[in-house]
Amino acid sequence: MSAKSSGGADAHKRRAGERAAEEVEDGMVVGLGTGSTTAYAIEALGRAVADGLEIRGIATSFQSRRLALDVGIPLTDLDAVDGIDLAIDGADQVVDDPDSPAHRALIKGGGAAHAREKLVAAAADRFVVVADSSKLVPVLEAPVPVEVLPAAHTVVADRIEDLGGDPTLRMATHKDGPVVTDNGNLVLDCAFGSIDDPAALARDLSSIPAVLEHGLFVDFADTTYVGTDDGLEVRSY
Amino acid sequence: MSAKSSGGADAHKRRAGERAAEEVEDGMVVGLGTGSTTAYAIEALGRAVADGLEIRGIATSFQSRRLALDVGIPLTDLDAVDGIDLAIDGADQVVDDPDSPAHRALIKGGGAAHAREKLVAAAADRFVVVADSSKLVPVLEAPVPVEVLPAAHTVVADRIEDLGGDPTLRMATHKDGPVVTDNGNLVLDCAFGSIDDPAALARDLSSIPAVLEHGLFVDFADTTYVGTDDGLEVRSY
Repeated sequence: MSAKSSGGADAHKRRAGERAAEEVEDGMVVGLGTGSTTAYAIEALGRAVADGLEIRGIATSFQSRRLALDVGIPLTDLDAVDGIDLAIDGADQVVDDPDSPAHRALIKGGGAAHAREKLVAAAADRFVVVADSSKLVPVLEAPVPVEVLPAAHTVVADRIEDLGGDPTLRMATHKDGPVVTDNGNLVLDCAFGSIDDPAALARDLSSIPAVLEHGLFVDFADTTYVGTDDGLEVRSY
Repeated sequence: MSAKSSGGADAHKRRAGERAAEEVEDGMVVGLGTGSTTAYAIEALGRAVADGLEIRGIATSFQSRRLALDVGIPLTDLDAVDGIDLAIDGADQVVDDPDSPAHRALIKGGGAAHAREKLVAAAADRFVVVADSSKLVPVLEAPVPVEVLPAAHTVVADRIEDLGGDPTLRMATHKDGPVVTDNGNLVLDCAFGSIDDPAALARDLSSIPAVLEHGLFVDFADTTYVGTDDGLEVRSY
């Protein structure tokens, strides 16, 4: 029972985040993801920097930038570096089935930061995913967040329905109206049921006009650290 | 010689734009494109509205919105209508070769409005292209405008080079620094030489993280009106 409590999940997240931070080496440019599990990695990196580790971070969101500044990680920008050595980020769901062609595909975007997260992941030599075991699934089935130009949300919703999806405009809780992303856009959470072929769906979503980015990350992850009751599981692909 | 003068090209544009405007019928929702040829269509529609034609327009840019208001076309928005009956827009290059699988593929984005232009074109039951004959080519070879998140321009440029392209950040002339789109983003003009398979390139460009939209329009055009020395040529696909 306790493993299912928030304390248990929190311990799992901490294990995964802190283990991923150990991969960071002196001199690296590091992509800093968004979310509660990645926050443990950023905090661990902050402690390492205080102990002398020399790195430069690239934030994926207002939130991760704020946290990195709080814990003392020097920040830089994508246009100021040749590339990113390692990026660490969480996921909302990860396919964990070596027999599936969708193995290691994942869904991100619960925090509406997936456009910049995907940009950073794509620019990184290695993309390390951190998750607690509740995020592992045999088949992706969570709604896929799709960031769209504000003027486009009804037209894109129609196209999502043509693809068999059920789109819902994400609404805000501490402002009237919809969630607005860090890029000034809106988010459609698109339920597709079981996603058997995430690569094909990713291509179809990317091709819809006025879609900035969707939350399907296919062929991005290099390693996944999964915090569990017993410790830590590592998936290398 | 005179046909090659700007007066000649202007007459060609006028012929194409005004002919396209004749397709508009009472009660239609009409997509209003951007650019000098489409401006002739918008002006003709303004005259028709003054004569009693009842339509609602949907602008593709600040520029086309301004012109439509100036000539008295009532405007509406994409989220206020069920769809668009007809959209009229120009092009920078159009493939005019019935034997080519790329026939009717086109490049837009010289005005940096291609994201909203493509959204409107995709939402329209019919997409009518207006052009003067200088825009017709056997193979697309103009640089493809790619709208990207500001933070992403160097990373996307690297990915464009991986695809064999030569990207140039579009610079502004009446402000310091780069052109900023109506959506707050930047534009990379990406030279690929001859584009033999625009459908494949379109898919590849759409899949690059932090790309909002590129200027390749494949399988969009339903009719092209081409103004020529002798009058008007019509391509229906």
